Amino acid sequence: MSGHVIAIDGGGTSCRAALADAEGRVLGRGKRGSANIFTTSDTIGENIAAAAREAVCDAGLEGLPLKSIPAFLGLAGINVGERQRELAKALPFADTKFVHDGVIALQGALGDEDGVIAILGTGSVYLSRAGGVSRSIGGWGFAIGDQASGAVIGRALLQQALLAHDGVREHTPLSRAVMKRFEGNPEAMVEFAQQTARPADYGAFAPLMFEHDEKGDVLARDILLDAVRDITMALDAIVFEGCERLCLLGGLAGEYRKRLSPRHSAILQEPRGDALSGAVQLALRAFPPQAVGENG
Amino acid sequence: MSGHVIAIDGGGTSCRAALADAEGRVLGRGKRGSANIFTTSDTIGENIAAAAREAVCDAGLEGLPLKSIPAFLGLAGINVGERQRELAKALPFADTKFVHDGVIALQGALGDEDGVIAILGTGSVYLSRAGGVSRSIGGWGFAIGDQASGAVIGRALLQQALLAHDGVREHTPLSRAVMKRFEGNPEAMVEFAQQTARPADYGAFAPLMFEHDEKGDVLARDILLDAVRDITMALDAIVFEGCERLCLLGGLAGEYRKRLSPRHSAILQEPRGDALSGAVQLALRAFPPQAVGENG
Repeated sequence: MSGHVIAIDGGGTSCRAALADAEGRVLGRGKRGSANIFTTSDTIGENIAAAAREAVCDAGLEGLPLKSIPAFLGLAGINVGERQRELAKALPFADTKFVHDGVIALQGALGDEDGVIAILGTGSVYLSRAGGVSRSIGGWGFAIGDQASGAVIGRALLQQALLAHDGVREHTPLSRAVMKRFEGNPEAMVEFAQQTARPADYGAFAPLMFEHDEKGDVLARDILLDAVRDITMALDAIVFEGCERLCLLGGLAGEYRKRLSPRHSAILQEPRGDALSGAVQLALRAFPPQAVGENG
Repeated sequence: MSGHVIAIDGGGTSCRAALADAEGRVLGRGKRGSANIFTTSDTIGENIAAAAREAVCDAGLEGLPLKSIPAFLGLAGINVGERQRELAKALPFADTKFVHDGVIALQGALGDEDGVIAILGTGSVYLSRAGGVSRSIGGWGFAIGDQASGAVIGRALLQQALLAHDGVREHTPLSRAVMKRFEGNPEAMVEFAQQTARPADYGAFAPLMFEHDEKGDVLARDILLDAVRDITMALDAIVFEGCERLCLLGGLAGEYRKRLSPRHSAILQEPRGDALSGAVQLALRAFPPQAVGENG
């Protein structure tokens, strides 16, 4: 053991790694593609190991083998199934601990304080810590969960654009813009949805929606009203009595921040740090440096 | 050519075949699993050929080779992409013509009359014929279409049950019954949704929903109100001025019939025949028996 730790923040769209020393200083960083265990199980191990190697090189420690360093991983989708055991076997680290990526985001955003975070990106998940006890809701993935996430609102947009194409609802500038992305061909859109679209591919339509909402587009408004209602319901379920701190994280945080209900806006705060900084904190607790000898 | 035709009704849950003579009399029938070109492209050709062979045997014509008989096929999902060409090559018939399964259902339900049909089963699609001109909306499949279908309302049910599990909405007897199917384990439900669930698997939850709706379950009511709103919007888009005939078809027709808006109930009629009978009618037009010699 070198006294170093690897921290991994593995989300739906990218996997970030940090190499930290025994005091928690980040010496190097690395980044690769998606580490969502649902959608990328074939490549997830490679992505994680590559990001970690990059962090080690970035620190100028090319000679340090990954098998000498323990790793603490926060991964999207990890709360489901048995796949983390298979993954642990495939990874090259000295020791491996997994948590849901929400847990590292919570630590990064709140440090050791109580509060609530909502992660609104390609997926959606909510976590609270009250009296030191953590709880999460959501984070169940795109197929039957992740309300208000980029993937879910992007899929809703395609559904509604197809209804507009069929004359079931009025076209708007937004629905026309979406059909145009498929050259006006609904069959191409359906092929995309049935064959190739992953959550992040649907999520790529979210910026278009927010952009049109600013201009008063009725379809954008309808989808986003539903999404904000879903966020509000989830927050009402997880914000606890006396909660003074709510952080919105993820790629859509900036857009949803403006649309929160007043009771939630009232406790909104900036996160203290990002998920990777939370993973570094937790890595040092999970793999405490040997007090004697490390500074020798 | 033997003067016979094969008619195929290939839907999301089963594939039915009929062997008919030159007068349209059905001599034999066969049945196999799903022939939805979206979800079962590996086995669709085998299912169709097996159902057809069974129909030929059922007619007592074991000696009649499929390669001597032309086939007219109405298939779910056939309006999308290039896959029908691949499929045509893989099938053993003397000649092969495809239409969307809605087209044979329309012919079966209305004969040569004008009117509208709504097919509400594992998927959903709407067709009209006005002044002899046909039009369809919907039928785009489960991922971004098929509103109110068994698959879509079944998926909505799982989504809402998961929200109830998380405490985001109130549990009802229906949401508890759904969680019980997964032994109370949300991870098992998510695994089902992410890994194994096909549209028909979600659709299998529809009967449970209608059953609980009869007992006043709030969750069943909410999902079915949304579904009926979607059906109403689609019918308003396709029912034409002066339309006197609306037929509801598919596995959910009986349940949705009771919930239609009055303006649609007013023109509701029983279908004249089923989709397979429509396929037989269209098969004889597509492959007209040689007038001379057939009766000789």
